[in-house]
Amino acid sequence: MLKHKDIPVILSEQVQTTLTNLEPLTRKVFLSLTPPSPMDNRADVDQVRQMLERSYDFVLVPLALMRKIPSICRGAHWQVTATLAESGNGWELIDLEPGDMTEQQFGLAIDIGTTTVVVYLVDLCNGAVLRHAADYNDQIILGEDILNRIRHAAELGGLARLQNAVLDTLNRLIRVLCPLPMETKKITAVAVGANTTMIHLLLGLDPASICRDPYTPTVNNPGLIPAGEIGLDVNPLAPVYCLPSIGSYLGGDVIGGILVSGMHKQPDVSLFVDIGTNGEIVMGNEDWLVACAGAAGPALEGGVTSFGMRAEPGAVDHVSIDPLTGQVVYTTVANMPARGICGSGLVDTLAELFLNGIIDRNAHFQKGRETYVVVPGKETASGEDIVVTQIDINNFIATKGAVNAATDLLMENVGCAWQEMKHFYAAGAFGQYLPIESAITIGLYPDLPRSSIVRLGNSSGEAARQVLLSRTKRLEAEEIAAKVTYFELNANPSFMEKFSGSKFLPHTDLARYPSVKRRLQTLV
Amino acid sequence: MLKHKDIPVILSEQVQTTLTNLEPLTRKVFLSLTPPSPMDNRADVDQVRQMLERSYDFVLVPLALMRKIPSICRGAHWQVTATLAESGNGWELIDLEPGDMTEQQFGLAIDIGTTTVVVYLVDLCNGAVLRHAADYNDQIILGEDILNRIRHAAELGGLARLQNAVLDTLNRLIRVLCPLPMETKKITAVAVGANTTMIHLLLGLDPASICRDPYTPTVNNPGLIPAGEIGLDVNPLAPVYCLPSIGSYLGGDVIGGILVSGMHKQPDVSLFVDIGTNGEIVMGNEDWLVACAGAAGPALEGGVTSFGMRAEPGAVDHVSIDPLTGQVVYTTVANMPARGICGSGLVDTLAELFLNGIIDRNAHFQKGRETYVVVPGKETASGEDIVVTQIDINNFIATKGAVNAATDLLMENVGCAWQEMKHFYAAGAFGQYLPIESAITIGLYPDLPRSSIVRLGNSSGEAARQVLLSRTKRLEAEEIAAKVTYFELNANPSFMEKFSGSKFLPHTDLARYPSVKRRLQTLV
Repeated sequence: MLKHKDIPVILSEQVQTTLTNLEPLTRKVFLSLTPPSPMDNRADVDQVRQMLERSYDFVLVPLALMRKIPSICRGAHWQVTATLAESGNGWELIDLEPGDMTEQQFGLAIDIGTTTVVVYLVDLCNGAVLRHAADYNDQIILGEDILNRIRHAAELGGLARLQNAVLDTLNRLIRVLCPLPMETKKITAVAVGANTTMIHLLLGLDPASICRDPYTPTVNNPGLIPAGEIGLDVNPLAPVYCLPSIGSYLGGDVIGGILVSGMHKQPDVSLFVDIGTNGEIVMGNEDWLVACAGAAGPALEGGVTSFGMRAEPGAVDHVSIDPLTGQVVYTTVANMPARGICGSGLVDTLAELFLNGIIDRNAHFQKGRETYVVVPGKETASGEDIVVTQIDINNFIATKGAVNAATDLLMENVGCAWQEMKHFYAAGAFGQYLPIESAITIGLYPDLPRSSIVRLGNSSGEAARQVLLSRTKRLEAEEIAAKVTYFELNANPSFMEKFSGSKFLPHTDLARYPSVKRRLQTLV
Repeated sequence: MLKHKDIPVILSEQVQTTLTNLEPLTRKVFLSLTPPSPMDNRADVDQVRQMLERSYDFVLVPLALMRKIPSICRGAHWQVTATLAESGNGWELIDLEPGDMTEQQFGLAIDIGTTTVVVYLVDLCNGAVLRHAADYNDQIILGEDILNRIRHAAELGGLARLQNAVLDTLNRLIRVLCPLPMETKKITAVAVGANTTMIHLLLGLDPASICRDPYTPTVNNPGLIPAGEIGLDVNPLAPVYCLPSIGSYLGGDVIGGILVSGMHKQPDVSLFVDIGTNGEIVMGNEDWLVACAGAAGPALEGGVTSFGMRAEPGAVDHVSIDPLTGQVVYTTVANMPARGICGSGLVDTLAELFLNGIIDRNAHFQKGRETYVVVPGKETASGEDIVVTQIDINNFIATKGAVNAATDLLMENVGCAWQEMKHFYAAGAFGQYLPIESAITIGLYPDLPRSSIVRLGNSSGEAARQVLLSRTKRLEAEEIAAKVTYFELNANPSFMEKFSGSKFLPHTDLARYPSVKRRLQTLV
């Protein structure tokens, strides 16, 4: 059971790209209108529309706005600011304010993870993130992972409960960012990065077919939807853009990650890995992109090891073993007494066990050992030793092996040699917090020059910010979605074959890990 | 006080034009979709949109439809019919039905008059009117004429009451046309012809500025509005198109009348007159169009004469006087005992009084007479004589004089001689029921060859039908609206001058009325 009182350690950091040419989803335009006279007695709405259509094609004025235009124009002595939203092949007037408000334009970039949600308040005038707020997804109590959420959605009223839960989370975070209700209505554009199931639940779309053969979602590219139809507490006409997904298991969060990495524009081949509650791997360059996905997460989220836990206070997050004394040096989140081990602590532990010869290349304990004490009982919160067991190691190695097997399968399918891979992008929370050297040592990350290994941070949130701000980026995201070829791992017999052979540390083919090979030789 | 139990005699007849190229506001498209498979696992919504975008640009799928698409497609074995509505510069999916429903496409053409409302159920496949229903406008009890409605709208809750009243009227008529609620949702397009105030009240727009200098409406061209936002009981996403108006006193009903007459496409000059609760006059040809309007109606609606009444049962509607015996021969609506005189009966009476020398060219009774008995008390419902008085005649002549003065003013302003006028179009109920010979005799209509005088019937309703069915006609209506030059009569000093000189029968300038001149000579 998740304790909401714990301080959530939710990834909100982003590798922000400065966008040179801002073309946000909504634009503000100052209008100095002509007061009606016998010489010019055009209707108010028509005059507003005509003035806007000088610069914008096909401006739709919704009835709700028509009703307000005469009084706003008269009250403001015909000096008003129009907010236009992209809509189909034209524009829609979604707000009219008195005076010149062109310097106050706000939008939201949202990352909805299965576990955590981050909302960024973005200044649409300059692209800056003004504030952000994060929390766990309220849907967790209705199902810990995607499969359980989809099951819950099939129950009576389940879909509505799930939609309300994520809306409650989002609207609570929006109120944190904009405490005054008046202010939330000034938010006129929203972009969302999330996996396919999260998008379905946000939009109230039945996710049943996502987990049923042939795994077709209801929608991959929902287009622009008014926020009021979804239930977000912002301007009800604010367009909501969801990063397009390319299938049930490859969502807009991954498309967003590719967008942020820029791998789709480089001649060199890159590898992109996002291990969250689910894991996704993408490989490619400016000419091609291949991807696969699977439920690889629990091993790193603390779900499968005896003392596994999320990166909450008291989680052991860094571990090293003194090669001379064999003594363990560790740190914990928030410096609290140790309660368990989170993903980064586990990766460190395994790397150190391997480098110190406590486990071998098969990841087996040496000398009949069955457990390893990471934190002795006298230092832990419970008084009990915190250990890793052979079973814990095996479970984790399965995750690592799956990543290796999937990567090899993708390379084989596109005829790409591992030497061609020049960049590695680590997305999401694990990408951000996992110790790079340890991840390479155990073979979870490729052994590239360290400058070619890039942590993308919350790339789903950053991608949302980019598409919120740039039409070019929206088109780019859609081009990426159209370009990616998805490989179904479960259906692929050679995946299981490669998987069985991928359990060596750091890799079956040690030649791929020259720096690890050198360290092993040094230590030996 | 209006008695709703009377049988309303509401003009619903139309001079229907056969449209050669149907391009209705909404179109149905049959889709034979591909059931998802591992080979083609596109998302349902994306597949529907992609298939539609083969033939239609920029198809928007609203969230409400996305939610239904998977179950409809699966239930119908992927054989479905999409309904697309015009929207901005693209299309919007507004309905999806199982099977091939392309032969069942329905729309409504609506004429909203200040007094009466007519709804036509139109087959969008062939343009035919399937049924129609008519009733008085429920707004009447909130104000008999436009000015009183606008005053009522300014009261607390008045605008909402007026909007609800006309929606009640319309939704009641829709239920008459489609008794099953399921059927009303199959109506996917609506077009409306109405005066500017009626459009404002239908849309819930404040009409206050319509009657305040400089007389600017809130909107002249509202564009396409979803029926659900207005409150019409049809498919809530059905687009509602209102014929554009060109100002507070020249509404979409008149633009529609011009459209139906075709005068805007002829090289010859035509005159168009619509005398309803308000009166509008338009003159022009393919190169120019000028118009004026005023509250000319009451004289013909029975509001100003002692025994005036609407064309309800018991209204004297046709009158002739035997030149030899002086005996009156008359008919009544529904052959009921006479209760009063309606517009057509009054025009007949005046013409006959004039032709028989009972009134002179100044419209004055001869030989000291002060009244004329049209129906003696022994034949009337009340037992009282039904008479016309000199005051009745004077009031009516004021209306006729206003039409003549306005026509002369328009001609003078555009430098058009009366001999150039080749066609006369009589719109609305009075145009339909007024006896042409009598109307010419008293100078209300011009003395043209009778084949050049065309009764347009409910041209506002027919125009609504045309724009419902044809994109070309919608563009034409908008071109007409952009082309008409409006003359403000009240602001024009020479109008009053002309008006004072326009009270002769049939006209100050008898040369303009050769056929009347001949009849007068024959009778003398």
